[in-house]
Parts: sequence; C-alpha cells; structure tokens
Amino acid sequence: MSLLLTGIGLLATQDPELGEIVDAALVIEDARIGWLGRAGQAPAADTAVDLGGRCVLPGFVDSHAHLVFAGDRAAEFAARMTGRPYTAGGIRSTVAATRAASDERLRLNLARLAAELRAAGVTTFECKSGYGLDVETEQRSVRIAAEQTPEVTFLGAHVVPAGIERADYLDLVCGPMLAACAEHARWVDVFCERGAFDVSESRAVLQAGIAAGLRPRIHANQLTAGGAVALAVELDAASADHCTHLSPADIDALAGSDTVATLLPLVEFSTRSPYPDARGLLDAGATVALATDCNPGSGFSTSMPLAIALAVREMRMTPAEAVYAATAGGAKALRRTDIGRLTVGMRADLIALDAPGYLHLAYRPGVPLVARMWQAGQEVALGLSPTQ
Amino acid sequence: MSLLLTGIGLLATQDPELGEIVDAALVIEDARIGWLGRAGQAPAADTAVDLGGRCVLPGFVDSHAHLVFAGDRAAEFAARMTGRPYTAGGIRSTVAATRAASDERLRLNLARLAAELRAAGVTTFECKSGYGLDVETEQRSVRIAAEQTPEVTFLGAHVVPAGIERADYLDLVCGPMLAACAEHARWVDVFCERGAFDVSESRAVLQAGIAAGLRPRIHANQLTAGGAVALAVELDAASADHCTHLSPADIDALAGSDTVATLLPLVEFSTRSPYPDARGLLDAGATVALATDCNPGSGFSTSMPLAIALAVREMRMTPAEAVYAATAGGAKALRRTDIGRLTVGMRADLIALDAPGYLHLAYRPGVPLVARMWQAGQEVALGLSPTQ
Repeated sequence: MSLLLTGIGLLATQDPELGEIVDAALVIEDARIGWLGRAGQAPAADTAVDLGGRCVLPGFVDSHAHLVFAGDRAAEFAARMTGRPYTAGGIRSTVAATRAASDERLRLNLARLAAELRAAGVTTFECKSGYGLDVETEQRSVRIAAEQTPEVTFLGAHVVPAGIERADYLDLVCGPMLAACAEHARWVDVFCERGAFDVSESRAVLQAGIAAGLRPRIHANQLTAGGAVALAVELDAASADHCTHLSPADIDALAGSDTVATLLPLVEFSTRSPYPDARGLLDAGATVALATDCNPGSGFSTSMPLAIALAVREMRMTPAEAVYAATAGGAKALRRTDIGRLTVGMRADLIALDAPGYLHLAYRPGVPLVARMWQAGQEVALGLSPTQ
Repeated sequence: MSLLLTGIGLLATQDPELGEIVDAALVIEDARIGWLGRAGQAPAADTAVDLGGRCVLPGFVDSHAHLVFAGDRAAEFAARMTGRPYTAGGIRSTVAATRAASDERLRLNLARLAAELRAAGVTTFECKSGYGLDVETEQRSVRIAAEQTPEVTFLGAHVVPAGIERADYLDLVCGPMLAACAEHARWVDVFCERGAFDVSESRAVLQAGIAAGLRPRIHANQLTAGGAVALAVELDAASADHCTHLSPADIDALAGSDTVATLLPLVEFSTRSPYPDARGLLDAGATVALATDCNPGSGFSTSMPLAIALAVREMRMTPAEAVYAATAGGAKALRRTDIGRLTVGMRADLIALDAPGYLHLAYRPGVPLVARMWQAGQEVALGLSPTQ
C-alpha cells in the first residue's frame, strides 16, 4: 500500500541538517518513506491526502521520560514555586505510591501519558524505571514500559531508597535487580548527582548494565557540575542528559564524542533553575537533543512543542536548531538511524502541523498545533481519552 | 432543565476570593448556577454527569485579545529571537494583510482562534479591532468580532498607519471611524506608548469613545513607564493592560482604583522582555487579571493555561492567585458581574480539568488539561477543526 501526501507547504526533512523543501509531497510505502520531493514531481500512489499547505516534519523523538509511576507531586511543585529548592529527595514519595500501585494502575497512568505525548507530536519515546527501587517494582516497571515502547531504560540507580544501606542497595541494583530487568530493557541509566550517586558508583552501575547487554545513558550535571559528563564520554554513553551545569571541559568533551547532550528545559522551567548553555554546546559542535523529562517531580510536562519554545526563548537556539534537536537529535540520543529524519527508506514517522511552518512551534507557545500523525506509515488518532 | 455535576474532586469557586470546596457537586439550571456545595448534600436534578474526581473552575475570561486579522509574522518573531527588539512598528504589516482580506477570510481566522481559546478553557473573550486603521476595515473588524463575542473593543488608535498625517488620523479615529464602529463595540482602547500615541492623544481618543457610549480600557506601560496608568485611573478605565514597566506611584494608583491591572505574560515570553511586577501589584492590593493578548506580532498564543504557568514561574503569583486573575480578575477587567466566579445565580460558564486540582495548570505546562466545558449551561465541544 502506498499513500501520497500532497499539499505540504513546507517539508522539514532534517536531512541534510535543517533540510527544507517548499511545496512538497511525500510517498509512504507500507511503513517506510518511499519518495519525497517537489509536489510537481510526485509519483502516483494508491491513495492520496491533501494537507492543504501544512508543514510536515519528522515525529518528535522524546529520548528522556519517566512515565511509570503513581501519584503526583503538585503540592511539592507549589511549595517549590514559593522558593523551596528542588532536590533529589522528593523522588522517594513517588516510590511509595508506585510500589503500592497495581500493574493495572501503572498501565493506565502510562497510557494516559503516552497519549499526551502523541497529541504533542511524539512518535517515539524513551521510558525509564526508577520509581520502584526494589526488585519486584523495578521489574514490573520495565515490563509495563516495554508494552508501550522499545526504548526502555533500567534506572534502578535513581536514588537510594529508605530502609537499605547504600552499599547494599548498589549490590542489589548491579545484581538481582539488573538481572530481573535486563530482558525488558535496552538501556541502563544512573542519576549521577549530589544526593543520588557519585561518579565512581555511577561507573559501577553502568558497567554492570553494559555487561548485562544494556547500553549506557546518564543523568549528568543537573544540579552541580560534577564528573558525570566526563563519565558519559568515557563510557561512550548515547546521551548525557540535563547538562544544566557544564564546565568548558565538559562542552569540549561532548563536542569531541558521539555522546549527545540532551537538554530538558521543561525541568528548568518547572524548577525555576538556570537553563543550560545550548549555544555553547552547539557552537562547539556537540549534538544537542531536546526531550521532555516528563516526571512527577521536577517537570510534569509531555509538551515537546513547549520544550522547543523554551529552547528558542530561553536557550537562544534557533527554531530550526530546536526542531532538529527534538527530532534528529533525539534519534541520535537513542542511537536510532531509522527515525528522526525524513529520507527515502526511513520509518514513516511524521507529523503535520496546523501551521505553514515549524517556526510556529515557538511562535505559538502553548497552542496545540499537531494536526495529524503517521507512525510507521499508519495514521494515528490524537485525541486524549479522559484520565481514569 | 437542570443538570447535576457530581464527582467534583475540587470546586474552585473564586468566591470568596480563592474559595474552594472539596468533594463537591454543582447544579446548572438552564443557563445559571442553581446550587453548589458538598456532594453529599446535592439536590436532585433532571440529569447528572459524574466528573470522576476532576477539578471544576470558572471558565477563563480572556479580557485582552486581538483576533481579527490576516497573515502572520512568524519570520518577524524568529528575527526577534535572534536579538532584534520588539517595537510597535510591525503592526503595519498586519494592517496591509488585513485590509486585503475578505470578510470571509477574517471570519475563518477568528473562528479558528475562538476555537483555540475554547480548547484552552476560555468561556468569554474580548476582541479588539486595530488592524484595519481605515474606516471601512475597522468597521468590518468590529462587526465580525461582534458575531463571536459581546466584548468588542474599538482600537482604531493602535498606531498611525502609513500615508496619513498624525493629526488627520486622530481626527479620523475620533470622528468618522468611531461613528462607524461604535454601534458594534462596547469598549474603546488606545495603544498609549512611545511609537504609538502619547498621553494627551490617548486621552482625546478615550474621551471621544466615552462620548460615543463606549467604556475605556488602555494599553498601558508595555514598553516604557509613561503616564498611561495614571490616565487609566483618571478616566476610571476598566483595565490598564500590560503594566510591564510600573513606577511605585503607578502601583499605588492602581491599588486605590477600580482599574484592573491586566498582565499579559505571554507577550513578555514571546518578546523576551522582563515580566511585570505582579507581586508588587498584589501586595499593594490591586486587582490583577491575566489575559492572552493573542495577536500576530508580540505574542500569538491562545493558551490561558500557559499564561497561568508563566504567572507562577516568572511573576511569583501563587497558582491560586493566577487562577483567580484568569477568571474573576478577567471578569472585573470587563466589568462583568455575571461571570468569573461560581456562585448561585452566576452564568454557568465552567470547565472541568483532567486533573484533581488547579495546581496542575502550572504544574503541567503545555499539557492540554481542559477536558469539558459548559457555556451558559450548555456543554461545548472542544475539538479544533483544521485551519482553512
């Protein structure tokens, strides 16, 4: 089956970088892109859809999200907005609610957030565990996450939970917990931060994960400029995430590596923190990704478009750089070569905006602009079902 | 006909100020609120809807929006984000597109923005002219606006258009243009600002409008701390809008008046400007409203929830203060006593959030949380139809 999309006012392919075709068309053949180019040269197809001048771009790739949990922390958020600082400690309150929740409850919560992500234009998302912090709940978390996405990350090393010694917990994470989770996960992650795990502990966790067949990614330099970015580069992690506090050496290390700097401005927004130095990273030649970091503590948003708007407003990325970071950048942060760009042979994951161009993602903050979505060539409904 | 809404997890009535009822119910009788209180005490009604624990609050009142125009200014926005400052001059490019547009085009554009406002939870919006700046197009603008809302504002004095002398344009605004527009409008407004109209000119425009039966509101102190706020108070304007640059005397004047300070943080967001001193205004006792200022130049967003999130993040309003400003504050800025709060006898304009409380409006920025809406007691569909 082939489908011709015509009437594309602007096709933002992201290949080559920031590539754009005006007055374009695109042919989907089964799950892949079969052809794209100027509308006047489009081949025939089994069916056709006229997009009426809309802008088409790759579906967003959200490479950092914590979506398996129960409860919320709205009151903690409101207290923080009156001046209380964000620390890693609040994670433990979500852990209690998550352990107490049934599989069905966790599944419903994840399904709601996955639907929100789709409505926000996300065609691929990563999903971390890390609110179980015992073998049973971590295993439940990665198993449930794997029902919704192949990009599952084991984050047993989120914080040390109450009731267990630090060294014992690290042994648990690197031993029985990892063993129970590895078959459901593709990635291993660690919160390398003051109040969570230091560089040496983080290295041990990631190396154990690598030995179990997982690939590393790291929560790095969110609250302090520690050694997490250097560790990410040392281990060839796919991504160093947050990068809120970077030294010049960190920027150079990222620019000289295959490790993506994944920036999460919705977290800086919701914690009233300074934004990361995106310009420094981009100007040095590092690859930057944008992701939501949707989680109940430091930033409970699924809005990739708002992350793009913040990147432009607060981090002085151009709209084109921000869209690239939210698509091709996110794909690189997941080491995926089949998504994040629109070229022949790529997976047909794409969105059409109710706007003539992608500038509108930043120009119209907060406005729901994602009009239509195709995932692996199939059109997907974008309505939100009510919270259960 | 009566309708019982049950299962309201939190009813944020805004009366008395920030009033809240946990585990509540509400009865709509025709277009009005017939009863509200604890769920266990609810009377019978013809039909019932269980809201499953959702938060209910008054529909948002957007007291400042420019919605009748053609064209967009995405490229000007992108240039501004690279460092070019915002000035009043860009308005003229929208004027050219608006004059050239058919009534039908203007109607379609307005309908799309009105649908976006509804999807964002707005049950009442104000709509200004000001992109015509000749008698014919200003008259078309207010006439088309009046098809969608009773809160129509004549803003012929937006800027002096090209091709006419300043004094001649003021004569036109206060004479034939006002005469052609007054029957379709409730309000008269002026852009009192460097590059637009000075205090003396603004006073003349507003006094002419008052003489024609309109009530005054003012674009005040957006770019500079001139005398616009003092003029607003002098003329008992319903609202002084923007208030980005305020002197202590301005704050005192507003606090001692019935003039609402309408803050428009989506504009500061989209122009990368400093935010107004909401805390100074609130602590002095002024009434604050939040509105979108949706317009193609300085901020093209219809998202009242994002305005609330910005008020909390950037202006240090509490979530409760921000919701009050977006509901009861907006109603006062339109001198409306029948909307903006939920009490017996008020118009049944209300929304249900896909969230247990209103904190989520700031806690979940960019997420579409408005699940259901009733306007004058009738449920309204919230889907967006595609741009024409």
